[in-house]
Amino acid sequence: MRGSAGLESDRNAALLTDLYQLTMLQAYWREGLEGRAAFSLFFRRLSPSRNYLIACGLDDVLHYLEELRFTEEALDHLRGLGCFGGPFLDWLAELRFTGDVYAMPEGTPVFPHEPLLEVEAPIGEAQLVESFLINQVHLQTVLASKGARVVAAARGRKVVDFAMRRMHGTDAALKGARAFYIAGVDATSNVLAGKLYGIPVSGTMAHSYVQAHEEELDGFREFLRLYPDTILLVDTYDTLEGVRKVVQLARELGSDFAARGIRLDSGDLATLARRAREILDAAGLDAVEIFASGLLDEHGIARLVEQGAPITGFGVGTRMGVSDDLPAIDLVYKLTEYGGVGRRKLSPDKATLPGRKQVFRIESGGAAERDVLAGRGESLPGRPLLHPVMKSGERLASASETIEEVRARAAEEIAKLPARLRALEVADPPYHVEVSEALRAEAERAATG
Amino acid sequence: MRGSAGLESDRNAALLTDLYQLTMLQAYWREGLEGRAAFSLFFRRLSPSRNYLIACGLDDVLHYLEELRFTEEALDHLRGLGCFGGPFLDWLAELRFTGDVYAMPEGTPVFPHEPLLEVEAPIGEAQLVESFLINQVHLQTVLASKGARVVAAARGRKVVDFAMRRMHGTDAALKGARAFYIAGVDATSNVLAGKLYGIPVSGTMAHSYVQAHEEELDGFREFLRLYPDTILLVDTYDTLEGVRKVVQLARELGSDFAARGIRLDSGDLATLARRAREILDAAGLDAVEIFASGLLDEHGIARLVEQGAPITGFGVGTRMGVSDDLPAIDLVYKLTEYGGVGRRKLSPDKATLPGRKQVFRIESGGAAERDVLAGRGESLPGRPLLHPVMKSGERLASASETIEEVRARAAEEIAKLPARLRALEVADPPYHVEVSEALRAEAERAATG
Repeated sequence: MRGSAGLESDRNAALLTDLYQLTMLQAYWREGLEGRAAFSLFFRRLSPSRNYLIACGLDDVLHYLEELRFTEEALDHLRGLGCFGGPFLDWLAELRFTGDVYAMPEGTPVFPHEPLLEVEAPIGEAQLVESFLINQVHLQTVLASKGARVVAAARGRKVVDFAMRRMHGTDAALKGARAFYIAGVDATSNVLAGKLYGIPVSGTMAHSYVQAHEEELDGFREFLRLYPDTILLVDTYDTLEGVRKVVQLARELGSDFAARGIRLDSGDLATLARRAREILDAAGLDAVEIFASGLLDEHGIARLVEQGAPITGFGVGTRMGVSDDLPAIDLVYKLTEYGGVGRRKLSPDKATLPGRKQVFRIESGGAAERDVLAGRGESLPGRPLLHPVMKSGERLASASETIEEVRARAAEEIAKLPARLRALEVADPPYHVEVSEALRAEAERAATG
Repeated sequence: MRGSAGLESDRNAALLTDLYQLTMLQAYWREGLEGRAAFSLFFRRLSPSRNYLIACGLDDVLHYLEELRFTEEALDHLRGLGCFGGPFLDWLAELRFTGDVYAMPEGTPVFPHEPLLEVEAPIGEAQLVESFLINQVHLQTVLASKGARVVAAARGRKVVDFAMRRMHGTDAALKGARAFYIAGVDATSNVLAGKLYGIPVSGTMAHSYVQAHEEELDGFREFLRLYPDTILLVDTYDTLEGVRKVVQLARELGSDFAARGIRLDSGDLATLARRAREILDAAGLDAVEIFASGLLDEHGIARLVEQGAPITGFGVGTRMGVSDDLPAIDLVYKLTEYGGVGRRKLSPDKATLPGRKQVFRIESGGAAERDVLAGRGESLPGRPLLHPVMKSGERLASASETIEEVRARAAEEIAKLPARLRALEVADPPYHVEVSEALRAEAERAATG
């Protein structure tokens, strides 16, 4: 098996888990522990660089749960490990996920201690799926949340995802392009992500293309001949000289000149954009737009926007692609109920609230004011955020959404947040999430009981 | 397509690229630019938190190059994008990678400006593969390099990769487990990575298992019945109380007690380990080892080791899994030669050295002293690090290595580095890489010519 970890992982996705999930599963099976358990997927705190996260990854979670099964090949492998018995493996061959799932729809802004999703199933099943569920929701939530900041910084200017090459592997590059699009990014350079998810694709040219021609001007001319409305990369040798060559080409081509823009990829982007704008405008090329790229993140974009740099679009790569200021969050999946009784873990700094939950978002005049974290059975004012998405192992029809629906939700829900949360700086005060009276009482009982 | 991005990406791996690679390819084809190009994959600088990187990812690169082809499905998709002509797509259907590759073997310590690999092929082919090559080598090099630091900090104590759940997607979780093992990590919790790459797998138990039992002691007893030599997680409620329950169980089971160890996952690990050791020793359980986990990285491990904490093994997760202090490096793939002539890019801070290269590592008494970056044709003192690994699109037999061979090389090559480079602190002075006289002269010529 070389290179095709993707293929192999799909056929054997059930093995894409931590060993202890399988040893615990065998223990539950041997002990006859088949009681129904509830697990909650949530995070405990926001980093100062995030005022909210965008829930993302549910679609892949539901697909995984529907498809989960151990193939003959997987069972043979487990047999070879020496720690699993034959009768258990026979039982495992028949195992399917039969549980229920409640979740926030993808694209929903989410806050500490609020469940992104809750799984209710016989304890073995619910436990087994932990590693994969965290892996997917973590990746996609981390990236959607970073993408939302980049989009906010661009204040309506176009943002294109250029990150594929430095994202962490092929799965991240694909799921990430989807997460960015949901967060409001306009297009991706990733061709396969465009195919899989129906995302608009976009691209310009690379320095090597310019270098492969004897003269920069020849490279521009040839590329325009094939792609009349393309964007020309002008910084291979000397940026402003490159811009002047675009002007020269515009004169040469006359009314056939239709280049959409130029791209700056290095240097002092604000200054270069201003000078380039002057050169273009002086030549009557006001329709030629200026795009910028090169180590940009939300802060770099915000600076360019504040400086009034005449840039109409940003190509954003590595820093968004790995969420470099926050590549990981403390997303956890915790047992909150077993056999109908709320459970709490009391490890220092890792305490959990017991039982199945609901989150109510209190809105006023179309703006989100605060959330109330409550028990599932409670009926409180506000809009409930957790909905049933899977029943007895089957995805509900309401849980099949198009990417455009999810993207529209994200835009709408983010717009409802208080302005201080949508800023890049730390929101002071942070968004208020309170615990309902009933849930607080339940937590007291579970801690002392 | 839901959830199975892995499967889809394998079948359509040729589409896992940036759009501009395909538009440039069509331009080269239309212009008849078929000259042979050389591209070099390298990084420009080391972050202060890395004294060297470990080259990793070549195996997947060679597999990709051997398998590269556009399926009917992929071609249909491209046709639908509207920017590719029929004759070009017919030509693309027949395209295979026919080039040569020179590379450092996986596991080799590598420094700024040194090529990890060089591709020589008709320019279109060589350009097309850029995005995938960077994606894979970047991911695996970033993670192997972080893993090497964690292993160094543990000073011979066991390190287990617990990172799967918070790594960036499924591909990262699999390739990362391999990269960590190559870097010296002892085992992984990732079952599928164990299967795919022949890595030892390891795992203990989770808090939820303990919580699913009425009493912590019952959970321990049941788990030991099934896995007599397991490791018991003692911090679900109160760590030292948990340790005392292990002692109680040892008394109860007498000579049948064979637990290998306990695991601490929260709190002040050094203090808890010391107290736990005292409790265990006082009960005559000196053979029961203490393992620690919980937000560990190389610095946390180094502190525990310095404090003399009686810990014999570390479970390392998120911080290693996303390389949280350095999730991305400036790995680039640059045209260095076209049609037999060296090419340079002169963008500010992004200048490149022209032509195909070789790296000579100068050693003395078995220790690496410095590297010399030279032209490919030069014959200089020292050990050449770049070797042919693919000829005319076919992997050379010498470029098929077992993971154990690669792991042994990494250990050997890291041991040869000066001690200051193997420390966690910034090496002062950094490792010396000089440019050969001939290459410097060539760079001058290309810059002024």
